[in-house]
Amino acid sequence: MLSDIEISRQCELQPIENIATKLGLMKDEFDSFGETKAKVKLSSQRRLKNHADGKLVIVTAVTPTPYGEGKTVTTIGLTQGLDALGKKTCCCIRQPSMGPIFGVKGGAAGGGYAQVAPMEVLNLHLTGDIHAISSAHNLAAAALDARLHHESRLGAQAFTNQSGLEPLNINTDRIFWRRVVDHNDRSLRQIEVGLGQPNGPEHASGFDITASSELMAILALSRSVEDMRVRVGRVVLAESRDGELITAEKLGVAGAMAAIMLDAMAPTLMQTLSGAPCLIHAGPFANIAHGNSSIIADDIALKLADVVVTEAGFGSDMGFEKFCNIKVHQSGKSPDAAVLVTTLKALKSHASDQDNSDVTEPKQTRLEAGFANLEWHINNVSQYGVPVVVTINRFEHDCPKELAWLLQKVRASKAFGCEISDAFSQGAEGAKALADTVLAACEQPQHFKFLYDHGLPLREKLLTLAEVGLGAAGIELSAMATQQLEKLQAEGFGHLSICLAKTPMSISHDPTLKGVPNPFVIAVEKFTLNAGAGFITAHAGKVMTMPGLGLKPAYLNIDIDNQGNIVGLA
Amino acid sequence: MLSDIEISRQCELQPIENIATKLGLMKDEFDSFGETKAKVKLSSQRRLKNHADGKLVIVTAVTPTPYGEGKTVTTIGLTQGLDALGKKTCCCIRQPSMGPIFGVKGGAAGGGYAQVAPMEVLNLHLTGDIHAISSAHNLAAAALDARLHHESRLGAQAFTNQSGLEPLNINTDRIFWRRVVDHNDRSLRQIEVGLGQPNGPEHASGFDITASSELMAILALSRSVEDMRVRVGRVVLAESRDGELITAEKLGVAGAMAAIMLDAMAPTLMQTLSGAPCLIHAGPFANIAHGNSSIIADDIALKLADVVVTEAGFGSDMGFEKFCNIKVHQSGKSPDAAVLVTTLKALKSHASDQDNSDVTEPKQTRLEAGFANLEWHINNVSQYGVPVVVTINRFEHDCPKELAWLLQKVRASKAFGCEISDAFSQGAEGAKALADTVLAACEQPQHFKFLYDHGLPLREKLLTLAEVGLGAAGIELSAMATQQLEKLQAEGFGHLSICLAKTPMSISHDPTLKGVPNPFVIAVEKFTLNAGAGFITAHAGKVMTMPGLGLKPAYLNIDIDNQGNIVGLA
Repeated sequence: MLSDIEISRQCELQPIENIATKLGLMKDEFDSFGETKAKVKLSSQRRLKNHADGKLVIVTAVTPTPYGEGKTVTTIGLTQGLDALGKKTCCCIRQPSMGPIFGVKGGAAGGGYAQVAPMEVLNLHLTGDIHAISSAHNLAAAALDARLHHESRLGAQAFTNQSGLEPLNINTDRIFWRRVVDHNDRSLRQIEVGLGQPNGPEHASGFDITASSELMAILALSRSVEDMRVRVGRVVLAESRDGELITAEKLGVAGAMAAIMLDAMAPTLMQTLSGAPCLIHAGPFANIAHGNSSIIADDIALKLADVVVTEAGFGSDMGFEKFCNIKVHQSGKSPDAAVLVTTLKALKSHASDQDNSDVTEPKQTRLEAGFANLEWHINNVSQYGVPVVVTINRFEHDCPKELAWLLQKVRASKAFGCEISDAFSQGAEGAKALADTVLAACEQPQHFKFLYDHGLPLREKLLTLAEVGLGAAGIELSAMATQQLEKLQAEGFGHLSICLAKTPMSISHDPTLKGVPNPFVIAVEKFTLNAGAGFITAHAGKVMTMPGLGLKPAYLNIDIDNQGNIVGLA
Repeated sequence: MLSDIEISRQCELQPIENIATKLGLMKDEFDSFGETKAKVKLSSQRRLKNHADGKLVIVTAVTPTPYGEGKTVTTIGLTQGLDALGKKTCCCIRQPSMGPIFGVKGGAAGGGYAQVAPMEVLNLHLTGDIHAISSAHNLAAAALDARLHHESRLGAQAFTNQSGLEPLNINTDRIFWRRVVDHNDRSLRQIEVGLGQPNGPEHASGFDITASSELMAILALSRSVEDMRVRVGRVVLAESRDGELITAEKLGVAGAMAAIMLDAMAPTLMQTLSGAPCLIHAGPFANIAHGNSSIIADDIALKLADVVVTEAGFGSDMGFEKFCNIKVHQSGKSPDAAVLVTTLKALKSHASDQDNSDVTEPKQTRLEAGFANLEWHINNVSQYGVPVVVTINRFEHDCPKELAWLLQKVRASKAFGCEISDAFSQGAEGAKALADTVLAACEQPQHFKFLYDHGLPLREKLLTLAEVGLGAAGIELSAMATQQLEKLQAEGFGHLSICLAKTPMSISHDPTLKGVPNPFVIAVEKFTLNAGAGFITAHAGKVMTMPGLGLKPAYLNIDIDNQGNIVGLA
């Protein structure tokens, strides 16, 4: 089979205007950025306001393994399959971060015959949204440090006399707002800023990767430009020495941040290899944030398409849970069906025994042992009242006997259906059976329910999330976390969702616990407030918000060839 | 008179396709990015290769004052004037940096009736070129620190065994490559990175504003994508412990950096308020770099237009000198005429006496005393063999008698001509007289010459630049500078141009010396190598490469109104 980039280059794409027209956008409702991408204007959202919604399908997966389950391939492949069945379809996916593209081999455009194209356009700058988030985020950091500088150099009274502004009295030990860059840059994780006499005061700081910015979550969760503007104002940057929260609004920087983010509010339209429309928008993490594309993109797509397919990060304990309890809670639009992606390899690697044999080799007992992880995720999705279609993403050397066993096993479970997907090797054709079953699932009666009542106190919500959402035996809060939770509740943030940041590599908080872990306790070290995005992140274990470049980073292979094409992207 | 933004909003712009067609681009030679901007493809450059060049006009100025001389207004106004005379005209200007836009009130789109529009499009992200430069620059920094990290944690032998790469043995005291961000962020000027056990080694670092990146100068000076790729490879990032230069090529990151910069190689097309075409490309500083727009933009514009107008940063001792001795040296295209911008206010503020009266009030003696500065710049431009047209940028309350005196005085000087410009208040109409005189100047016989022979040793070039270029009594090198110069000469960089980084606020190195300073000596503290851009920067005094936000920064006024428009940009 050809490589991803070869397949992508071979394919003749349609002018993006045709894709926009096919999706149902009017000529003045999108701005083409060259031939392969367009910004969809928010005027379309206003025109379509009273149209009926299409069906919303969320793609999730079993607990991730290092082998790659192919969730994005399935999302794009399913979109192609639905399109091939004559359904008006659109997928809504996140924008890939550039950091990992230069660090780890692998873009985020799907693969094989299920790709968004051109992959180098998707994987690099696209229409600049991530750059805009970096810029808005770092303006707030610069503004905060500048205010600190002037107040400290002049003293409160002289500062007010000269500037006409109230002093903020920023506590350098309580600056929550770090800086961001869209690269894997380990050496910026922990830095000291403001060194050198006229540049201070000195204080500890650091950079995270842009995708982890609260502004990225805000971009994804805002329902309109006005909503975004209000949310940006609510972002908490620091605390004063008197313990008062310093928001972006209070610092006077929220308007400028929103101005920088304005263009980024418009989703980007691209196409799959088969010419199905794809909206790309926002790219929040699925641990410290909700890990799904934007409410605005979904909203536009749902008004225009019969079926909208979107992807939630990591396994169903992570992205799917957050999709439901954070995004659906804010958007009001619940999913009509879920697709749960698995592979033979993934299940074998989740076998609870200590079998270390090659996961690509047939081994029925191991597969059977690993099935528990899939079953857990089927049950997990089902408890939200969403019909689950399991899809087995087929790999070249998969054993037909094992595939047949798994199909039958899933079909006997709570799942609405199970299909094998050959989207990778066959594109749309390989996803038609899946598409058919998904359409049938979407016709099921709706029984969506949240995991918890948002009116409950924060501690109760967290406990429900741990016990009912993950099957934990309970929660354990550090002294700091206990104090923080009480403070957040008292400060009026009790109505927010809980976003549990834990390892994605296990249903539990411990990445070494494969399959379905025995009773475990979720230990929360600290909470962080995302007042603009509308959730409180509970940190159960270290979440890496700034990756590092490895020993042989992917950038070594990336270059421009003598035709001026980019080469070396996976 | 209306404000800049009101004038800009009132004006009905043409679809950018019309502007592209008017300029002579074929339909497949540009990519529209919405209705108001387009990327001009480099395929146009290849098609036009054998076309004859139009005339090239460079706009420069007297020594800058805090009052603003209106060089960009003149550049855009002159373009409008030439266009109104029926000449096929295009201006080529630099992309404004976002940092100062949020710091100091004032965009960089011109003003009054001489603007590039829409100003909020020009002043914010445009087509993402500056973001691309930031990203490529910071990838190199991340890559360098990651290499340092892995070599240091494993040791040279194990590093090579595990990675298959030769160790670079980076000297943390000799890392030249800092990081960049397009904001005014004082607290990032001097930082310590790599703190915390697994993130090291620790070392000193810092951020500059993106416009000051060598990659920005490379973007401006490259003649093609291939040329850019080679130059990026030559960039020197650090030294090894054995004193060897570590380039981006040696680190293996040059290809990826070039890939990130690829789209940015295409200039952006916009229009003036009167519908004249304007190419916006690159934005290098005019102290540590050459301060002019790109060779590629000029090249495309010169093939398509009869007259191309471009702007050099600061006074003629700075941007114009560098335009000639760096850019023209690399492009091979010398200017046909120069426009030297002055104002009554500027000259009065350059009066050598200690007169502190209001510069807006008529005061003939003060004007006469300040004339020396203008005369110096006329002579300076003339020594390059370029005909000079002086333009007096008229302000509302300018005294007609003083204007008349100045006109007559300049017309009796070495200048080819002198005109008053009313481009600010009248647009094209107010710049027609200037346009006429500029066209006549362009018909003069060509006698362009460089200030120095590039084959001379670096020290000789610097001496000529100081003595002949600035009228200095000589140069003085610090011990470090002397050593560096010998090393650079020995390492084979002797053929590069000299880029003198000094204050723009005086012809000398001392910002307090107004008018035409008495004999002064240029003291050079250090040199920095820009092996990719092709020049060596001689630092005469501190150049601020990272501005800070002031007491009442411009961001306080910037916001989105309830129609979704950006407000508060000056």
